[in-house]
Amino acid sequence: MPYFDAASTAPLHPLARQALLSALDEGWADPARLYRDGRRARMLLDAARETVAAELGARTDEVVFTTSGTQANQLAVLGALAGNHRNGRHLVHSAVEHSSVLHAAERHQADGGTAAAVPVDRQGRVRTGAFAEELRPGTALAALQSANHEVGTVQPVAEVAELCAERGVPLLVDAAQSLGPLGAPRGWSLLTASAHKWGGPAGVGVLAVRKGVRYRSPLPADDREAGRVPGHVNVPAVIAAAVALRAVRQEAAALNPVQHARIARLREALPGLVPDLAVLGPAEDRLPHLLTFSCLYVDGEALLGELDRAGFAVTSGSSCTSSTLTPSHVLAAMGVLTEGNIRVSLPADCADADLDRFLEVLPRAVAAVRSTLDAPSATPSTDELTLDTLGRRCPIPVIELAKHLGDVPVGGLIRVLSDDEAAGLDIPAWCEMRDQEYVGSEPAEGVGAVAYLIRRLS
Amino acid sequence: MPYFDAASTAPLHPLARQALLSALDEGWADPARLYRDGRRARMLLDAARETVAAELGARTDEVVFTTSGTQANQLAVLGALAGNHRNGRHLVHSAVEHSSVLHAAERHQADGGTAAAVPVDRQGRVRTGAFAEELRPGTALAALQSANHEVGTVQPVAEVAELCAERGVPLLVDAAQSLGPLGAPRGWSLLTASAHKWGGPAGVGVLAVRKGVRYRSPLPADDREAGRVPGHVNVPAVIAAAVALRAVRQEAAALNPVQHARIARLREALPGLVPDLAVLGPAEDRLPHLLTFSCLYVDGEALLGELDRAGFAVTSGSSCTSSTLTPSHVLAAMGVLTEGNIRVSLPADCADADLDRFLEVLPRAVAAVRSTLDAPSATPSTDELTLDTLGRRCPIPVIELAKHLGDVPVGGLIRVLSDDEAAGLDIPAWCEMRDQEYVGSEPAEGVGAVAYLIRRLS
Repeated sequence: MPYFDAASTAPLHPLARQALLSALDEGWADPARLYRDGRRARMLLDAARETVAAELGARTDEVVFTTSGTQANQLAVLGALAGNHRNGRHLVHSAVEHSSVLHAAERHQADGGTAAAVPVDRQGRVRTGAFAEELRPGTALAALQSANHEVGTVQPVAEVAELCAERGVPLLVDAAQSLGPLGAPRGWSLLTASAHKWGGPAGVGVLAVRKGVRYRSPLPADDREAGRVPGHVNVPAVIAAAVALRAVRQEAAALNPVQHARIARLREALPGLVPDLAVLGPAEDRLPHLLTFSCLYVDGEALLGELDRAGFAVTSGSSCTSSTLTPSHVLAAMGVLTEGNIRVSLPADCADADLDRFLEVLPRAVAAVRSTLDAPSATPSTDELTLDTLGRRCPIPVIELAKHLGDVPVGGLIRVLSDDEAAGLDIPAWCEMRDQEYVGSEPAEGVGAVAYLIRRLS
Repeated sequence: MPYFDAASTAPLHPLARQALLSALDEGWADPARLYRDGRRARMLLDAARETVAAELGARTDEVVFTTSGTQANQLAVLGALAGNHRNGRHLVHSAVEHSSVLHAAERHQADGGTAAAVPVDRQGRVRTGAFAEELRPGTALAALQSANHEVGTVQPVAEVAELCAERGVPLLVDAAQSLGPLGAPRGWSLLTASAHKWGGPAGVGVLAVRKGVRYRSPLPADDREAGRVPGHVNVPAVIAAAVALRAVRQEAAALNPVQHARIARLREALPGLVPDLAVLGPAEDRLPHLLTFSCLYVDGEALLGELDRAGFAVTSGSSCTSSTLTPSHVLAAMGVLTEGNIRVSLPADCADADLDRFLEVLPRAVAAVRSTLDAPSATPSTDELTLDTLGRRCPIPVIELAKHLGDVPVGGLIRVLSDDEAAGLDIPAWCEMRDQEYVGSEPAEGVGAVAYLIRRLS
């Protein structure tokens, strides 16, 4: 099965697998113990910490191992805010951070703190000026990911780090998606990462806190991992994670151009192969192995299903694929089309033949979903039209709009009534893709109902 | 190297090792994903949960996987207190709970809650009557381990569960040490355990919460593990943990009598082989594989070192082996001798030859340590004597006392000046072992200095 979801979890690096197996024999004992097997586990743990610290450009006593990237982000946000509370209780973060950062921010707000989400442009890149504005007195922590996990946009960490340094605000950089291919950025006060994203095993995250950055653990006391991560350390997994990181960092110089070329090929080919497909995220300053696109008039879950049946493992930020039926907060913050959304993230050993077949399969899969949804073609006109799509979910409102655009003359107005949150993103995005005028929205009758106004321009 | 520290971390069960290796191939994908590999990981995770739930006598939706037993205990304590806060903010726990429970209790107190530690008897068994007294109105949670991790005492969980049920107080049972050999006790409202204690891999704990027991996560939101444990689930490790648990539970009926016989052999032989050795913990109602003893006039760290050089991996609750230079809180709560303390916990495949050799090596190791410390023999007398051991650590104060007991006549008084916290436990324990009268203690001159008064009776 061609696995195109490396950004969710990368296949275990072959060297990490080897390291894990031998560490189950060599590093299985409790590293806190004073006997030989315990001392050996401690030495292996220390060596793993040195490896990871070297890759981060950190001191070994700045680096601890967590049990996941999510835990690392939660601890980093809450620990830095607690440590720095004398400076205030304001948190600034980009609107497109990983959900673990956003959830920690929600917890901080529930506990009486404040948080501001800095908007991003249509490429998903944080607006540096807007970030600067939010760094007001009382800001105890700023958080900016190194690169976005859904669309691959590399963030301006160096510029934001400079802004933060000028104002004495510590900066947390979530490097989960970029540490393997791009290495650690400069300028962080706290840095987090996740081993299974770089080819290490599950169960290992990294939290680095620069000496001098105030940090107070939000968890009960424990004497392991410098008092920052409670619980028995999973030494074999940590060893394997360190081996994987060193390996992928060494391989990155040769691999990145190959991955960029693979993604560029998809990026160029897809719009010509699939009508009404929008590639999301920038062409430059991006992760080498990741591409995201959305398809008009397509149900994301149905498209995932078609691709799965064809043997492709990908993921989606469409609302219909989330447990909460809301679209990805990243796509929402970018203001781009969320329906029929697909993220492709290639493993290092991606075969060209799999890319060929993906380009062959995707158009058929999209067409199959569109045919079941009765997606639009062309028909004649009346003057002003209201389309009632209340109670119907993404992508039906946009399909109805597109289907009936030709029912009004150029200059005519269509009102789409919808109570689906995704429509507020997808209808403006459709207008932009189709060069139609999105006039705006107004409340309509019914719980959560909104009328979206569209003027036909062509 | 004979590994006699299974209670710290048990060797990985051979079936768990096999399961881990195949799960790295079969269960590596993100179980939240909708494609085939993700669905397979989800199915394997579900199956592991069913296995563990069946062993606990729980429903599958009552069981989540944590990243360690420590995390499970922290979440159980803080989550149950938060969920049940309308009933009050009082926590009752035994004085000999695992440090993760005590540290969570400290955090609860720092946040304005109250906690009471119920005393134990000299065998380390909680006093049920005292537990009942502490269950006052406003008690939101009670916590009692199934069996003690340092001395092996099985606790009266059924009786305490009944007391709690009568008063409507949820009971957390930390079953980390007993789940493998003894299975899950009855009567729990919340139950925790740790896979690497039962022969599973590191990185997996268990938190079970009975339906109807109020629980509110103390951590930021996350949609994995029923919202109770944030972060990517380590599916391969969870699978291996479940396989190990099923295996050890099946093997327990045959293994437990063998382990009890091994421990009984040590228990009977040791006092005859090593002078001034006290076996701690009860002879009955105990874990089958664990024995703890203390040796007078011995430095615990030096004894660990002697045994390590002879090839034995054991651990100690003596103050000199802890980072804080305080003796084990368990031994302190029992009021027993903490110096020269050794815990032996046998793995399933313990060889008889290794036990033979341990019985041969230990007397020599103890004698070697005693000789370096100039431990006491006999000498004549004066009337009342003050021994200044200020600035000297365990076991020196007791060695000095024993060495100079003969310097006063029967009925004479010795004052030992000490600023070592362990002396407060070890001097009374020595008096009990030696049938001398411990008169009491009083403040002495100097920071933290105490005068301990001992009357010679024989």
